[in-house]
Amino acid sequence: MTSTGTPSIDLRTLIAELPGIEIITDPSQVSKLSQDYYTYSPILQEILGDKRGDLVVRPTTEAAVLHIAKICVKHRVPLTVRGAGTGNYGQCVPLQGGLILDLSNMQKIKWIKPGIACVEPGVKLAALDKQARESGWEMRMAPSTYRKATIGGFIGGGSGGVGSVTYGQLRDRGNLLALRVVTMEDEPRVIELRGDDVYKVAHAWGTNGIITELEIPLGPAYAWAEAIVTFPDFMTAAHFGQALSDSDGMIKKLVCILADPIPGYFAALKTCIPPGSHCALILVAECCLEPFAELVKEFSGTVTYQKTAQEASKGATLVEYSWNHTTLHARSVDPTLTYLQTLFPADKSLKLVEHMYHHFGDEVMMHLEYLRFNGQAIPAALQIVRYTTPERLQAIMDYHEEQGAMIFDPHTCILEDGGRKTVDVTQLQFKQMVDPYGLLNPGKLRAWEERSQYLA
Amino acid sequence: MTSTGTPSIDLRTLIAELPGIEIITDPSQVSKLSQDYYTYSPILQEILGDKRGDLVVRPTTEAAVLHIAKICVKHRVPLTVRGAGTGNYGQCVPLQGGLILDLSNMQKIKWIKPGIACVEPGVKLAALDKQARESGWEMRMAPSTYRKATIGGFIGGGSGGVGSVTYGQLRDRGNLLALRVVTMEDEPRVIELRGDDVYKVAHAWGTNGIITELEIPLGPAYAWAEAIVTFPDFMTAAHFGQALSDSDGMIKKLVCILADPIPGYFAALKTCIPPGSHCALILVAECCLEPFAELVKEFSGTVTYQKTAQEASKGATLVEYSWNHTTLHARSVDPTLTYLQTLFPADKSLKLVEHMYHHFGDEVMMHLEYLRFNGQAIPAALQIVRYTTPERLQAIMDYHEEQGAMIFDPHTCILEDGGRKTVDVTQLQFKQMVDPYGLLNPGKLRAWEERSQYLA
Repeated sequence: MTSTGTPSIDLRTLIAELPGIEIITDPSQVSKLSQDYYTYSPILQEILGDKRGDLVVRPTTEAAVLHIAKICVKHRVPLTVRGAGTGNYGQCVPLQGGLILDLSNMQKIKWIKPGIACVEPGVKLAALDKQARESGWEMRMAPSTYRKATIGGFIGGGSGGVGSVTYGQLRDRGNLLALRVVTMEDEPRVIELRGDDVYKVAHAWGTNGIITELEIPLGPAYAWAEAIVTFPDFMTAAHFGQALSDSDGMIKKLVCILADPIPGYFAALKTCIPPGSHCALILVAECCLEPFAELVKEFSGTVTYQKTAQEASKGATLVEYSWNHTTLHARSVDPTLTYLQTLFPADKSLKLVEHMYHHFGDEVMMHLEYLRFNGQAIPAALQIVRYTTPERLQAIMDYHEEQGAMIFDPHTCILEDGGRKTVDVTQLQFKQMVDPYGLLNPGKLRAWEERSQYLA
Repeated sequence: MTSTGTPSIDLRTLIAELPGIEIITDPSQVSKLSQDYYTYSPILQEILGDKRGDLVVRPTTEAAVLHIAKICVKHRVPLTVRGAGTGNYGQCVPLQGGLILDLSNMQKIKWIKPGIACVEPGVKLAALDKQARESGWEMRMAPSTYRKATIGGFIGGGSGGVGSVTYGQLRDRGNLLALRVVTMEDEPRVIELRGDDVYKVAHAWGTNGIITELEIPLGPAYAWAEAIVTFPDFMTAAHFGQALSDSDGMIKKLVCILADPIPGYFAALKTCIPPGSHCALILVAECCLEPFAELVKEFSGTVTYQKTAQEASKGATLVEYSWNHTTLHARSVDPTLTYLQTLFPADKSLKLVEHMYHHFGDEVMMHLEYLRFNGQAIPAALQIVRYTTPERLQAIMDYHEEQGAMIFDPHTCILEDGGRKTVDVTQLQFKQMVDPYGLLNPGKLRAWEERSQYLA
């Protein structure tokens, strides 16, 4: 192997032991499939820019995954799982080389029942939505990358997205029903996890088993109308977002609030958002458009753009200007920009938003995404930051935490450091069982690196 | 006319002017159709027991309603609208005699589209549900009387019910889309109200126009599983109810928490609820049963009864043990019992519930119904009260308000006194236009009685 740390074995030996499985060794292809969208972070660019796997394998069946796992264990080769690679923290970037397990060809939709789908991990979110909608259902939530992203990647490395304003986040009970995972034991096996046991593997970045099948809940497929509402001042836009999110009688899927000058980065929407105005990007069920108009009136907003679900399905959707697509558009204009991930706790959320908005001014441009968190709609934020130095970026994040906001640091590739900064002992114990040699996505799990502190 | 206050006219004259419309004059029938379920309140029994209309008319078309309105205006005859009469505050009991307009024969379902239904006021809630479910929809919320109750009565006199734990209450924007009303002007006409204008008529007990058509939103028709969960102590049951209501990933329709000894009044459920235990009556989507079981485990509850949606559709449903059916069952065992209606504000809800639970003991038996209120799940309560005197009942309500709970007094037949105790000037101005002679359900609207204070 060409990379760091792991016992080197002959690549040809490995390949010879994986007959009948698609294998990629072309260096530029392997490089590409070793990357994700961590480039939004200048910090991660430094850390991850040169990280590469040694080869990529693309199985199409669970049996093939079991075989690959067995060969990797036999030779003690690191294995890093990936889907479409739309993550932003290097979730699927191999820190110690080895084998990249690309599951994007495992894309069977096994069944769809009212409210539940059973799928393979490589199913694209848009493909699942398309099929589910035929029977009146759709994914409860999805990232703005839903056209490319796979369900396995979303469950393994995501946390929520468009739809979270109604259903909360993936971590909330009910938003993930069951998983099948292949272990990395000497004799790899398949384990089915249901109920709370799914959290032994969900959002563990492929460090705790290889997901080969998922049961996920579906939500009703409303006809989603899209609207842009503009406001002369930012805090009115923010309060409008809170009020819409709190309107239990209105069915919504996206409540995204953008401070000026962020909308200026959206070339295609320029005619809909007058310069200097703040705006809300909204997906609301068509049956709620009349009450929605009343709420807009109450907040003296101006609807500058509105499409029926039918119209929205034809061209660009507002979803692709929300969540981290907002950052994508801004960075396509100015690649020096980066971003933050923040939650503003319910008890002081909009006061804290207002404080940060004024405190940082244009250095930290406010982008709120409302989501439900423990039963309450609160503003999460994906602020766009004018980056200068790592120290300044850290100081900005520190200030947020000092003031009571929760930062989910998108500038680290260590799972716990980007999340709740605590060790999940149940997850660690599960990893000890299913990956005793620590071969799955090594280097990402602080709990594993420091396991002697937590395991008896 | 036989009743109080209104200029007496010859009943035969009136009848002669209403050709081709079903008219009931049989005294026992008229008596029956002058009543509702106000008998839950010993106070209202005193006030309303002898109140009767003079005749009942049962039109089947809006044109007939227009004609009836015209004749009533011409002769200045009070008109009180009713549906199935399942209300509990005498909403449809005529205080000043006159004509009872029974709309329960106007029961056309005009159309059902995804997420919206357009119906006549006499459509029974269960009938609408049955037809809507054929295309995957159902009413968002309904009272426990849904088998008998009409949609017009629910919108005119109700506030929420089973489903409010997800969609909030009828007063929340989005839960009522449009109304057609017939006025009581010299030349009665039809007015269509959409958007916020619907609140000029909704929940006005038929004092502000005669509803002849409604557009109401529908929700997705999940397969609703039913469960009873028992707990050894009440506050654990209450916290379980809050946690389930706050679980954004779990789809639920009913979260009803009953303190011992209330379940003892349910003869048919005796084998499922051990004596001395507190319980939760739950409707949860079948696709959420596994995460639901995890939540039950977290709170050390015991599932003593569980039915699939299919099984539940065959026999008695738990809905008919919840909301004011709880009171119905208790009163069928002990007719001296009465009840309260309370909201516990979000900031101190369960602390206040706990205080009241201990403070009143068995005199005020705790019955919580979780509902969403301005975006948050809070416990409403329909406590069952061991009634002694009017003064004691008032003292119990006063104590609740002193401690910060909101009482919605079910022992008054004055709209504002049972609600928010404020006058709705917009509604009053609308009444002045559409009912200038004050003939619609006279005596119920404090704003009208005291209108000189509010109108220029």
